[in-house]
Amino acid sequence: MDHKPIPDIVVGRLPLYLRSLQRMIKEGNLVTSSQELGERLGISAAQIRKDLSQFGEFGKQGTGYDVEYLHDQLKIILKVNRVWDMAVIGAGDIGSAVARYQGFADRGFRVAMIFDNDPVKIGAQVGDFIVKDKATMVEVVQAAGIIVAMIAVPASQAQHVADNLVKAGVKAILNYAPVSLNVPEDVHVQHTDPVTHLQRMTYYLE
Amino acid sequence: MDHKPIPDIVVGRLPLYLRSLQRMIKEGNLVTSSQELGERLGISAAQIRKDLSQFGEFGKQGTGYDVEYLHDQLKIILKVNRVWDMAVIGAGDIGSAVARYQGFADRGFRVAMIFDNDPVKIGAQVGDFIVKDKATMVEVVQAAGIIVAMIAVPASQAQHVADNLVKAGVKAILNYAPVSLNVPEDVHVQHTDPVTHLQRMTYYLE
Repeated sequence: MDHKPIPDIVVGRLPLYLRSLQRMIKEGNLVTSSQELGERLGISAAQIRKDLSQFGEFGKQGTGYDVEYLHDQLKIILKVNRVWDMAVIGAGDIGSAVARYQGFADRGFRVAMIFDNDPVKIGAQVGDFIVKDKATMVEVVQAAGIIVAMIAVPASQAQHVADNLVKAGVKAILNYAPVSLNVPEDVHVQHTDPVTHLQRMTYYLE
Repeated sequence: MDHKPIPDIVVGRLPLYLRSLQRMIKEGNLVTSSQELGERLGISAAQIRKDLSQFGEFGKQGTGYDVEYLHDQLKIILKVNRVWDMAVIGAGDIGSAVARYQGFADRGFRVAMIFDNDPVKIGAQVGDFIVKDKATMVEVVQAAGIIVAMIAVPASQAQHVADNLVKAGVKAILNYAPVSLNVPEDVHVQHTDPVTHLQRMTYYLE
C-alpha cells in the first residue's frame, strides 16, 4: 500500500465489495473472481481489479480471490475491523428505525445513544435505548469519545445539530435530513435522502 | 436540449440542485448563482455551470439564475413535475418509517400502498395505510400501474421481491435491503444502505 490519495469514488465502491464478500462468506463461497463480484454488483470486472489494485495484491492471476482474506483486508482498509460507536440525533420515525436497525452488527458499527429535544420523547425507550435530552448532546457525545453520528432531525434543525456535533468532536456524519450541511474540512458527511435517489431514476422513466 | 446521453453522475447531482432550489424558494430567495449553489452543496461553481449547461440555458452571465424558473425546469428534466405513486414492500421499522415519511410531498412522490408477508402485519395500520398481503403484490401493483417501488425487506428476500416487482412492471426500485439486486437493463435500481455510507467515511478517520 502506498500513500498517494485514492479517489473517493473508488473508496465509495469498497463497501459494496465488502458487503458482497460478507454475503459470500455466509453462503459458504471460499473463492471468488472479479467476474463474479462484478456480476453481483453490476460493475465491470476490470473496474473491480483496478480498484483493488490501488490497495495491494489480493489475488493471483487465474486463481481468483480468497474470499475471507479479501474480506478481512477490506475491513482493515475501511477501518471496520473494529466497532464504531454512534450517536443518533432525532428519535422520530427514521431515527428510531435506525436505532433499532439490526444491520449494523458485524459491519463495524453500533448505535450507542439516541437524542431528541421533544419532552415527550426524552426518557422514552427506543429499541435498547432511553432517549437522552438533546441539550446534553455536546457534553455526552464528547465524554463518550464518539466521532460517528447520524442526523435524523427535520431539515430546519439539521445544520444546528451538525454544528453541535462538530463541537463535540464528531468527524463523520450520516445525514438523513433532506438538506446539505456545511462542516469543517476535516469532518466527513454522507447524505441519504430517498427522494434524491428516486429522482435520479425518474429522469430515465418514460 | 439535445439527445446525447448525459452521464449518470451528472443526473445524480440534479436532485441536489433541485433540493437546494426548493429550500431557497422557501427562504424567499428569488435569484441565485452557481457560486451560492456551490457553497451550499460543497460542489464547485464551475461544475454546476457545466452540469446545467448540458440541459440548456438557465441563466445569463452576470445576472445569475431565476430560482423559481431553474427549479421548475429541473422538475421537468427529472420528471417530478408530476406525482409518482410508489409501493413499499416490507412493513418493518424501515418500511414503516418510509410509509409515514412526510418528506415525499412536493418532491414528486407519494406512497400509495405497503405490503408485507407477516400475518401479524397484514391488515394492520401503518401511517395512512392498511398493510396488504405480499402474496397479492404482483397483481395489485400491476393493476395500479405503479412503476416505482421501495424494497425494505430482509436481505435474504430482496432479490425475490425485486423479481416480482419486475414482473409487475416496476421500472425503478429504491432498495433499502443491504444486498445488490440483479434486474433487467430497463429497470433502474438505487441502493441506500447506511453502512456503506458510514464505511465510506471511516476510511478517512484516524
